[in-house]
Amino acid sequence: MPVAAAPDVLAQRLAAVVGAGHVLADPDMRAPFERDWTGRFAGRARLAVRPADTAQVAGVVAACAAAGAAIVPQGGNTGLVGAGVPRGGEVVLSLRRLDHVGAVDAGAGQVVAGAGATLAAVQARAGAAGLAFGVDFAARDSATVGGLAATDAGGALALRHGTMRAQVAGLQAVLADGSVLPRRAGLLKDNAGYDLGALLVGSEGTLAVLTEVALRLVPRLPARVAALVALPDADAAVALLAVLRAQVASLEAVEFFLDDGLQLVLDHLGAGRDPVPRAPVHVLVQVAARTDPTQELAAALASAGVDDRTVLADDGAGRERLWRLREGHTEAINAAGIPHKLDVGVPVAELPRFLAQVPRVVARAAPGARTILFGHLGDGNVHVNVLGAAPDDPAVDDAVLALAAACGGTISAEHGVGVAKARHLGLVRGSVDLAAMRRVKAALDPAGILNPGAVL
Amino acid sequence: MPVAAAPDVLAQRLAAVVGAGHVLADPDMRAPFERDWTGRFAGRARLAVRPADTAQVAGVVAACAAAGAAIVPQGGNTGLVGAGVPRGGEVVLSLRRLDHVGAVDAGAGQVVAGAGATLAAVQARAGAAGLAFGVDFAARDSATVGGLAATDAGGALALRHGTMRAQVAGLQAVLADGSVLPRRAGLLKDNAGYDLGALLVGSEGTLAVLTEVALRLVPRLPARVAALVALPDADAAVALLAVLRAQVASLEAVEFFLDDGLQLVLDHLGAGRDPVPRAPVHVLVQVAARTDPTQELAAALASAGVDDRTVLADDGAGRERLWRLREGHTEAINAAGIPHKLDVGVPVAELPRFLAQVPRVVARAAPGARTILFGHLGDGNVHVNVLGAAPDDPAVDDAVLALAAACGGTISAEHGVGVAKARHLGLVRGSVDLAAMRRVKAALDPAGILNPGAVL
Repeated sequence: MPVAAAPDVLAQRLAAVVGAGHVLADPDMRAPFERDWTGRFAGRARLAVRPADTAQVAGVVAACAAAGAAIVPQGGNTGLVGAGVPRGGEVVLSLRRLDHVGAVDAGAGQVVAGAGATLAAVQARAGAAGLAFGVDFAARDSATVGGLAATDAGGALALRHGTMRAQVAGLQAVLADGSVLPRRAGLLKDNAGYDLGALLVGSEGTLAVLTEVALRLVPRLPARVAALVALPDADAAVALLAVLRAQVASLEAVEFFLDDGLQLVLDHLGAGRDPVPRAPVHVLVQVAARTDPTQELAAALASAGVDDRTVLADDGAGRERLWRLREGHTEAINAAGIPHKLDVGVPVAELPRFLAQVPRVVARAAPGARTILFGHLGDGNVHVNVLGAAPDDPAVDDAVLALAAACGGTISAEHGVGVAKARHLGLVRGSVDLAAMRRVKAALDPAGILNPGAVL
Repeated sequence: MPVAAAPDVLAQRLAAVVGAGHVLADPDMRAPFERDWTGRFAGRARLAVRPADTAQVAGVVAACAAAGAAIVPQGGNTGLVGAGVPRGGEVVLSLRRLDHVGAVDAGAGQVVAGAGATLAAVQARAGAAGLAFGVDFAARDSATVGGLAATDAGGALALRHGTMRAQVAGLQAVLADGSVLPRRAGLLKDNAGYDLGALLVGSEGTLAVLTEVALRLVPRLPARVAALVALPDADAAVALLAVLRAQVASLEAVEFFLDDGLQLVLDHLGAGRDPVPRAPVHVLVQVAARTDPTQELAAALASAGVDDRTVLADDGAGRERLWRLREGHTEAINAAGIPHKLDVGVPVAELPRFLAQVPRVVARAAPGARTILFGHLGDGNVHVNVLGAAPDDPAVDDAVLALAAACGGTISAEHGVGVAKARHLGLVRGSVDLAAMRRVKAALDPAGILNPGAVL
């Protein structure tokens, strides 16, 4: 009897929960769930299962728990640390069918969405109600709000609105035994016991499977102005940030990139670009308000003494041109080679030291490699990209993460730990901290079936 | 040999940690730590101990853990639910000597403060640096930031800046075995493992003893305008809130009170007050910006069709007069009798139903009692005050908390659960939720020595 024909009892049980058509056991059917979009992380799944609602997710988790089968929850599969694809033999639990987005509650300023709803769908629903959502980033059409919550996603707007944790007013989750934790009330103030929701946000599917979130919305701000400031060094960038924090209430984003990254982007985009002032460090500031905030921003830039090295853009096309220089980094870098990409964060005061030392530690780890640095100045979040190092050589990653830790920072600012950085967690979390996390994991998932190998 | 002369081995060990002068065993010396400011909660302490820093707190907790002695952490002792005073025989661990406030980090927009620093001290330090702190309430001169974090304090500004959890960028805590959890980096984005800090905030001293917090600061907003709007009913108040959310980016607070409460305040303040329009429901709106936000607010009020029933105040004295009507409630109520005070929250959409039904359920529980309702409209947080019920009769409390739960709300919005509401927690947290909380408690405090009897 061929092995492939052996009946999978778990598959039969799952089919009873979600319908046979949503249990994908065939290799071709499973394939899209087994590999992340970068191609860096992949593993064989025992099955992929696509429940339709929280009750079905609970049934799936209970069946897996009874069978001792490990589960990898998967949202839009846009992660960068391998947390959403199998390591080998797990059941992939796709949340994509839980894609409902409720009506906006205008009084509460909230909307309820299924874990599988895309960021773009939530943004559209908020916009239609005259409000906005406080998180945005490039993968908005694929990334799901469940994944955003599971990784505590950040992005450029976190400076103003906080990370995803600050947007989650309530949630519903399935625990490791298949029971449902209902924390959906969406109350801004609710201190009736431990905030388990705040704990589950950012736990990367290792403590529970998020199925629904109540999301806080923010006012829609139609008036936006961007400014690109060319500065002599990172110290000047931090000084500018301090002035902006104190003097600009409508600050929305404060991003940075360096001049060699800018040159790479300009070369990639080709000729015919508007010239921008050149200097070692570039800071991209955006302010947003209901009424024209140009004066507020201009006054702060003048007070910081940088107005003569600034390009201001107060219309959509002009802002787009400036943001293209920042957002074009990823594409320009990918066109130049296969980069090592590391998402780290350091205290803002340590940024100058960190930025100065990264190229040195990279040069030691991979002589001849090229380092491109850019990111979110306002929260010390640096995207370190290294070109010219062997793709599988861990030396560069080890060196950069160790440097971030030595600067008092984190090995993961907004992408998560996943499987990619699990072995580096000890760089930034001491033995007391790791032991406490392991106790929490054991308390909520004693059998260890939720996303094993990720985070811890 | 008299019993009083028996040496307390634990006291001797604690004296070795903090110095004999900071271990208070004498009944007169212990007394201030044994009773809360309302006089409602009191219990005998085995000892009160006053460590000076995190290392001493760790030493105290380790000594208590070794002796199996229960600990009640205490901050400014301004709590309302009995979580900060002994139930009988515990060691009171006062954090008041940890009152340092660091220099403001202008680039990061943060300040580090000891758990014992008062809210007012943090506000002053922020203000001196041209910034502000995002939480404020009346007990600011006594309440400590450790207590604010332990209870996830709210207040009127939470509408704009979130509760205390949103302000805590990092923290240091002593776990139940005396080990120190260092989470002080203060990174806005840091998803290297579980956010244990977010879990500890709001855990009321039952999972760890907070010793230090890194606090996010917000821009100082010098231009403020308040408006008092008289409305026919709570539905109109919720409709106004929806318009304000969508049209006013500089919204700082949206409070409410009812007309009988207003009359009580006016009677208490005496004659000579400026007249305000009278109607069943009063909404107090405040907007704050760097430049005059009067036009923004006035336009929204006109758009909501309520400008003809609004008193606007655009100077400090005028704002103070309007806020006195809201903030004067507590004093006026206390002058009229000994109230039952219940801090609850309901979804904003349920507010009209809740406000209508509270007087009815109170009348059933305590015929002839008088109900005064006011609070934070923007987050559905209602302070229910009942006059004329027997002070020790639990029937009123039970009825009001059950109603809040039936409306999909919470038994505690911003005051915490403490010992006062521990027996009501099951009204709003189901068996799955309670079991998960107990597992987390057991994971982090297996011997149950941290604040036993509070929360769970």
